[in-house]
Amino acid sequence: MKKFKVGLIRVLTTEDEDILYAHSKFIMEKFPSIEVETKCIPDQYDGINCEELRLLAEPKIIELAKSFKDINMLLISCADDPAVLELKKLLDIPVIGAGEATIALANLYGDKIGVLGITDIPPRAYLAKEDSIIAMRPPKVSSTLDLFTEEGRESAVETALVMKEKGANVLALACTGFATVKMTPILEEKTGLAVIDPLLAMGTCAYFESLRK
Amino acid sequence: MKKFKVGLIRVLTTEDEDILYAHSKFIMEKFPSIEVETKCIPDQYDGINCEELRLLAEPKIIELAKSFKDINMLLISCADDPAVLELKKLLDIPVIGAGEATIALANLYGDKIGVLGITDIPPRAYLAKEDSIIAMRPPKVSSTLDLFTEEGRESAVETALVMKEKGANVLALACTGFATVKMTPILEEKTGLAVIDPLLAMGTCAYFESLRK
Repeated sequence: MKKFKVGLIRVLTTEDEDILYAHSKFIMEKFPSIEVETKCIPDQYDGINCEELRLLAEPKIIELAKSFKDINMLLISCADDPAVLELKKLLDIPVIGAGEATIALANLYGDKIGVLGITDIPPRAYLAKEDSIIAMRPPKVSSTLDLFTEEGRESAVETALVMKEKGANVLALACTGFATVKMTPILEEKTGLAVIDPLLAMGTCAYFESLRK
Repeated sequence: MKKFKVGLIRVLTTEDEDILYAHSKFIMEKFPSIEVETKCIPDQYDGINCEELRLLAEPKIIELAKSFKDINMLLISCADDPAVLELKKLLDIPVIGAGEATIALANLYGDKIGVLGITDIPPRAYLAKEDSIIAMRPPKVSSTLDLFTEEGRESAVETALVMKEKGANVLALACTGFATVKMTPILEEKTGLAVIDPLLAMGTCAYFESLRK
């Protein structure tokens, strides 16, 4: 069977192949019929954790997006969905961002969505649901790299529990880094809530598109 | 591998097994790791195509929902999502309706969603997106049964083309009957737009849930 080909853009510059290919590996393991080609933006080692870095990244993302050959779909692997709206207009294939995929699915699980992210202001797709979200940043986490530390991960669990206390009935992760460091099952176990993982959500949307064809 | 077990409620009474099992067959073919058990509500041969019939159906759906044993998830196979909000609160497993699944995914494909349904007022999940939908009922279709006629299907294609003319950049089907009569690929071919099928959308959400576990 011919595989469904997906381009995936990482918005974090890295030379570490384990990190670079973590998202494509995750998606291809979960959806073996999908083949993922990864590219990462240049010169942005901190990823995107503020408006300024998003604006810096967007033209690079658009440039990279145009450089893929023969893909059926493009995934922007960042919960902030940088350049996603522009690319939907620009390309003639479906373009989906991790943030919009996450919130689309989270909305089916609960009416009070706990948004666990790395920024004080949640990404745009989550903010669009502002009447039904509780958004918090773990105090010890302010960049995706902080999720690679024990202290950062403990802080994330504590914050998730606070959101549950405040009434969240589902958790939507607002950074793909949580999946990179495999935190989703831990958060699910500690809170007892369904945790919507941006990579699994985005991969599921790619799988949906592959089945539509 | 143990199959992921899903209960599915049809909101149309039928003794015709081809019709009764059309939805479960569709989902199990697309997602072989999912096992679907179907039940249909009693004494409602016209399905749901108005508020009155929805109100009549809802207590029957809740009753049926409680009668499933050992399921991991419940799907309400109707774009109107009857009793879905109530069941989400009542049951301790995820409950997803075909309408909310469809609109969640359609929203990722376009910002002007053509809603093709069988009622003058679109189902609630679609109405919730009222700023970004164009909703039309094909003139020759006023019940899911009309989709079983050639005249009804032609009318649906014509209406889809009118919505595209009006600016729709994705089509969201607002009745599972379109999938029952296999109209999705026809609509896609005739309009050139992505067509979001309620059964495939709902099946995809069930698959997402099965992967989360």
